[in-house]
Amino acid sequence: MSVTTKATIASFGGKLLKLTHNATTTNCDMNFNLYLPPQAVNNPTSKIPVLIYLSGLTCTGDNCAEKGFFQHGASKKGIAVVYPDTSPRGLNIAGEDDSWDFGSAAGFYVDAAIPPYNKGYNMYTYITDELPKTLFAAFPQLDESRVSITGHSMGGHGALTLFLRNPGKYKSVSAFAPIANPINCPWGQKAFSGYLGDDKKKWKQHDATELVKQWKGPLDALIDVGTGDQFYKQGQLLPENFEKAAKEAGVAGVKVRYQPDYDHSYYTMASFADDHVDHAAKYLFA
Amino acid sequence: MSVTTKATIASFGGKLLKLTHNATTTNCDMNFNLYLPPQAVNNPTSKIPVLIYLSGLTCTGDNCAEKGFFQHGASKKGIAVVYPDTSPRGLNIAGEDDSWDFGSAAGFYVDAAIPPYNKGYNMYTYITDELPKTLFAAFPQLDESRVSITGHSMGGHGALTLFLRNPGKYKSVSAFAPIANPINCPWGQKAFSGYLGDDKKKWKQHDATELVKQWKGPLDALIDVGTGDQFYKQGQLLPENFEKAAKEAGVAGVKVRYQPDYDHSYYTMASFADDHVDHAAKYLFA
Repeated sequence: MSVTTKATIASFGGKLLKLTHNATTTNCDMNFNLYLPPQAVNNPTSKIPVLIYLSGLTCTGDNCAEKGFFQHGASKKGIAVVYPDTSPRGLNIAGEDDSWDFGSAAGFYVDAAIPPYNKGYNMYTYITDELPKTLFAAFPQLDESRVSITGHSMGGHGALTLFLRNPGKYKSVSAFAPIANPINCPWGQKAFSGYLGDDKKKWKQHDATELVKQWKGPLDALIDVGTGDQFYKQGQLLPENFEKAAKEAGVAGVKVRYQPDYDHSYYTMASFADDHVDHAAKYLFA
Repeated sequence: MSVTTKATIASFGGKLLKLTHNATTTNCDMNFNLYLPPQAVNNPTSKIPVLIYLSGLTCTGDNCAEKGFFQHGASKKGIAVVYPDTSPRGLNIAGEDDSWDFGSAAGFYVDAAIPPYNKGYNMYTYITDELPKTLFAAFPQLDESRVSITGHSMGGHGALTLFLRNPGKYKSVSAFAPIANPINCPWGQKAFSGYLGDDKKKWKQHDATELVKQWKGPLDALIDVGTGDQFYKQGQLLPENFEKAAKEAGVAGVKVRYQPDYDHSYYTMASFADDHVDHAAKYLFA
């Protein structure tokens, strides 16, 4: 459970910590970044809520910490931001590093059910259980009763599915360009085949569009999708399916904003990060 | 003089353009980025002031456009931001790519006076003359009578020296971690030897600490230096020398802020970019 600090970087009046710990669920050392806002640094007795940001394909926890601008809003609101990695690393599974959309950096926030990836591709349990336990043990100043979740692309899928599968666990959810209906897009089908096998029932348990059909009550989810996003245009994201499923299930409150011309890059996250921090803050400080 | 647009990226309500043009002064094609704020995009008849951001060693115009957060403030104020490259590229000068602090990506914003770099390492004339001429011809919406300048490290040296050598040309100047006294630090001595030769009189003409001694009137320069900056600690930046020279010359208004723990990275620029945009805006909209 112990966490090692590899670097401390001043950022927006707070500190960005580059951390590593040995994780049981993923069977390897895992890196993650933690942004402590000035409110945490300046007042070590204050309790600080947490926003988890799940990254997309090919990324680590570093990309968004450097280019996503969540620290800007988080520093004003007094929210800690956690940037986990996107898969186990170095498990020496044959083919693990061959694709950019499967294996390393593409854990898809599920627990692998079949060999060889069940050797440690358990990002669902890692993110929902082991990482928070590790985090709150190492940083008692962080408030484990106030956690929100967001993410980008594969990480937007992660944020939506983790939220929908665990009612009450997270105070709020938002997403950028989420893979909103993975069972119906090439990325999702490849990942779920490889990690979950052929059991389509299991696939549905990790598909936001399927999960929202079971949701009870309103769902104030903020989702930004750029109309210039090549993966949106290719049908990898399918946010309309998620919207439609929510509507048909009588789930009110889902807000998908189609942002004109914005693409799939971190320029988009940077442009709207403040809005997503504000969305989380509304619930973290309710 | 013609400019080719290689990409257009939505950012903070405006557009980041990735541009290239064939430059005479540097004897090669030069890339640069231009951020057009929403005020320019939404109202093509408005005149938009310009902030030039000069990058540091090893960088291109891309790094700060992606990680520096200038678009955040510029989008609010209605300022265009120009991110030039840091040297000519591909001149096939022997040794040009051998060092990270000399040659490619290390043009130091001087005109090379000696072979072999006088083949095109003329970043002083490129930035002060050819690039603005090209820019204002291609984008008549930009207001050539309202231009400010800023930069980081080698680019902070560039911003200070270009401002001090050209009274009235730029409305304001600021810098992050500038190489403020290059004739007295290893980076500057290496660059000036290689580009300017042994004539120390020429060196002084491109040294902010020497130039400020000749400045007439006040100098409202905003300078941020991180106390955790390894290059500051190594004596590559020497902002104290600049402060001392300004003071001894009776030049009032220089404001050096020593930011506790901040390092030499883009995390620092991101944290204080808004302040530097505000500083420029004060003069661009005076």
